[in-house]
Amino acid sequence: MAEKITPRNVDYSRWYTDVILQAKLADYSPVKGAMVIRPNGYAIWEMIQQNLDRMFKETGHVNAYFPLLIPESFMKKEAEHVEGFSPECAVVTIGGGQELEEPLYIRPTSETIIWSMYKKWIMSYRDLPILINQWANVLRWELRTRLFLRTSEFLWQEGHTAHATYEEAEQETMLILNLYKKFVEEYLAIPVIAGRKSDAEKFAGALHTYSIEAMMQDKKALQAGTSHNLGQNFAKAFDVKFQDQQGQLQYVWATSWGVSTRLIGALIMTHGDDNGVVIPPRVAQRQIVIVPIWRGEEEKKQVLDYADAVKKELTKEFTVILDDREQYKPGYKFAEWELQGIPLRLEIGPRDVAKNGLVMVRRDLLKKEFIARDGVLQTVRATLDLMQKEMLERARKFQEDNTHQVDDYNQFKKTIEEEGGFINSHWCGSAECEAKIKEDTKATIRNIPFDRKAEKGKCIICGKESEGRVIFAKAY
Amino acid sequence: MAEKITPRNVDYSRWYTDVILQAKLADYSPVKGAMVIRPNGYAIWEMIQQNLDRMFKETGHVNAYFPLLIPESFMKKEAEHVEGFSPECAVVTIGGGQELEEPLYIRPTSETIIWSMYKKWIMSYRDLPILINQWANVLRWELRTRLFLRTSEFLWQEGHTAHATYEEAEQETMLILNLYKKFVEEYLAIPVIAGRKSDAEKFAGALHTYSIEAMMQDKKALQAGTSHNLGQNFAKAFDVKFQDQQGQLQYVWATSWGVSTRLIGALIMTHGDDNGVVIPPRVAQRQIVIVPIWRGEEEKKQVLDYADAVKKELTKEFTVILDDREQYKPGYKFAEWELQGIPLRLEIGPRDVAKNGLVMVRRDLLKKEFIARDGVLQTVRATLDLMQKEMLERARKFQEDNTHQVDDYNQFKKTIEEEGGFINSHWCGSAECEAKIKEDTKATIRNIPFDRKAEKGKCIICGKESEGRVIFAKAY
Ligand SMILES: [Zn+2]
Ligand SMILES: [Zn+2]
Repeated sequence: MAEKITPRNVDYSRWYTDVILQAKLADYSPVKGAMVIRPNGYAIWEMIQQNLDRMFKETGHVNAYFPLLIPESFMKKEAEHVEGFSPECAVVTIGGGQELEEPLYIRPTSETIIWSMYKKWIMSYRDLPILINQWANVLRWELRTRLFLRTSEFLWQEGHTAHATYEEAEQETMLILNLYKKFVEEYLAIPVIAGRKSDAEKFAGALHTYSIEAMMQDKKALQAGTSHNLGQNFAKAFDVKFQDQQGQLQYVWATSWGVSTRLIGALIMTHGDDNGVVIPPRVAQRQIVIVPIWRGEEEKKQVLDYADAVKKELTKEFTVILDDREQYKPGYKFAEWELQGIPLRLEIGPRDVAKNGLVMVRRDLLKKEFIARDGVLQTVRATLDLMQKEMLERARKFQEDNTHQVDDYNQFKKTIEEEGGFINSHWCGSAECEAKIKEDTKATIRNIPFDRKAEKGKCIICGKESEGRVIFAKAY
Repeated sequence: MAEKITPRNVDYSRWYTDVILQAKLADYSPVKGAMVIRPNGYAIWEMIQQNLDRMFKETGHVNAYFPLLIPESFMKKEAEHVEGFSPECAVVTIGGGQELEEPLYIRPTSETIIWSMYKKWIMSYRDLPILINQWANVLRWELRTRLFLRTSEFLWQEGHTAHATYEEAEQETMLILNLYKKFVEEYLAIPVIAGRKSDAEKFAGALHTYSIEAMMQDKKALQAGTSHNLGQNFAKAFDVKFQDQQGQLQYVWATSWGVSTRLIGALIMTHGDDNGVVIPPRVAQRQIVIVPIWRGEEEKKQVLDYADAVKKELTKEFTVILDDREQYKPGYKFAEWELQGIPLRLEIGPRDVAKNGLVMVRRDLLKKEFIARDGVLQTVRATLDLMQKEMLERARKFQEDNTHQVDDYNQFKKTIEEEGGFINSHWCGSAECEAKIKEDTKATIRNIPFDRKAEKGKCIICGKESEGRVIFAKAY
């Protein structure tokens, strides 16, 4: 609390780190590339887990747990996959004091180990579909840490489903992408654009990858979730066939999909301000803090009795902190809870008690508003609902205001350099043009939006025909 | 379903494995020493997590997440700890394609990494207590797998708390042990004996360890949870001091405590029968299965409409499966759900409909009982409550019936050999006598029960004075 947060306009990257460390969301660990998720940060992850897990189960998915360690030979069974992941793996070579015959990789993702099991479990069409999800830690070697966004180890969920047909797998891939979009927008209040990844940006081993892309306050893009149609690649690599209704043996169709603790980074960078993090009400474990204000014993008793009653009423629906610590002044408490992002603050002093009311301050607006004591539960409920809605709207407006339609490559380079944000431009579909833009500007194709207009145009690089615009941006 | 479960009296150990594999609770993985927790098994773990997590939070604990990989040098900072755990660790020596300068151990438990962080977080008495829990995977090298009971990797929760005084740490250690006892008895319906571990059996690095001990159906003991008062050992190893209210620097006091997926093994071995697993209602994700029985289209419609209405009513409070699959006969369905341990089966045929009732079968009793359609929700609720209670009582009676009070060492050896079970005998407190018994009989001191009678006696080995009886048993 003694330290100051670097303002966003001074250094966005330092602001991000300052907020995380000071709000005690996470900390650097003594192990290179690894972070510690502290209770304030983990509470957000628990809310993400709780809500996503419910949504997965409502759509017929179940959870399971597969081993952390994957034999090297498994990694090598799918050619693109091993090429994509092997270089960033941590490898166990000693176990129980002995050199191992075969090195074991800490999972960077679990397709290989899971499909080795599906081979045991899938015989006939009756065994399909399998709709399994796993909550787990994974590891991809990384030395330049950025808290929540880039660390060696991170937490995520990874869904791995098995289907009888391409169509079913494709349906599942889309179902999950839409579920992600709904969750990220309705809970995290982060607007996203759903679309298909270009081949260059797809998952190592996938037929195609869909993603949702968000815009951070520094106008860079952040990939918030991905869903892959893996085709029959892993079924072929692990020889997983099923007998169809006609008695024919066929390879199984696969999907995989995931979101990670990176979403916490997205939340911070979308909603945070120079006072700290701002947690959307629906993913705040503690939604309300009451700060009582008094001088002397008589006021104290009066104010605390009143505050207790308010707390009791609100506790019917919300988790409420009554910050009655004596050693800190109200201003100090305001700053502390703002830093931590508690959505709503209620201030109660003797004058509020006299007027049978209290002062309410929304974390995103930081404006004081006097409200009546009567109906406080209804007022608070409506305010939190409105706050949730307005946070999403504000972020959506920011995204729209910083999305540019550009048809000239010089203008494109100038916009990326000077403005940043999303650029909607025509692209012919070739990997060469995509690579040139990345080389020239560091911008990549975030995705090809599902809801883009069908609009003939010319590729911004080569001038060849294009079917519509794609999103370019610099990304985290 | 085609396979047969080995009966318990033929081969208890094979029965255990058969039940797990056939009920699809878990499976062997291609990685030596590792298992896969399948959805049916993971569902039990989720119920354990949900309930324990709520109990932890109600007692002021919060969750966090610490890194999987621990530098070798950290492991070596606490002498007993490294001696206890190093030999069973998996070691990462390659990361990102490079040989590492310092090997990294996959956590066998997280005291060292967590106390290296507590050093950063604890300055003054104001920072205490820290009451952190972590849900995580850990790894202790193991080649001879026994599903759920002994695998290299397993899932658990590990609490790590920091306190200003010995008394507070001791209080926390006991609070958690009692919480474990309450959970294991009231949710898993497994009666346990709480007590202190002998020095030989305590945690590597602890001042003392408390445990809860259960008895399986083969009369062997299973340690179901442990809670350690770590004293100042880890604070000294990681130099974690705080300034007390008088301004003096003092070492911090620590506890740690955990339960793991081993509890699922305990549940299976306590309640399972020759038809499969029996899940106590309070930890069953799906409590009820309805099996409709019909012949011909007319009966089908009538029975399914009736069954649907029953399901709808029960769904207000319970998760209900309506097994209306056409390709399987009722008998096949009965066996399948018995195998999986769904607590309550409801059978509905045309005659039941005519009589405005249904047949109810408790999984633990497997007796058919006709109940009225009216008030079915109340009947089912009361039945599940009763079942939960009786499962605990039955297991407690079994434990009591197989606990022997023995005062002669020859009798002791005979009882361990021929009867098994718990033996209450006097012990002088010496490590030598303890070691001799273990050497002679493979029985160990499970714990020194908190509620043992103060009863002077003579050590069953050396005849020296003893203050009371302790529990000996062969253990998993
Ligand atoms: Zn082009
Ligand atoms: Zn003795």
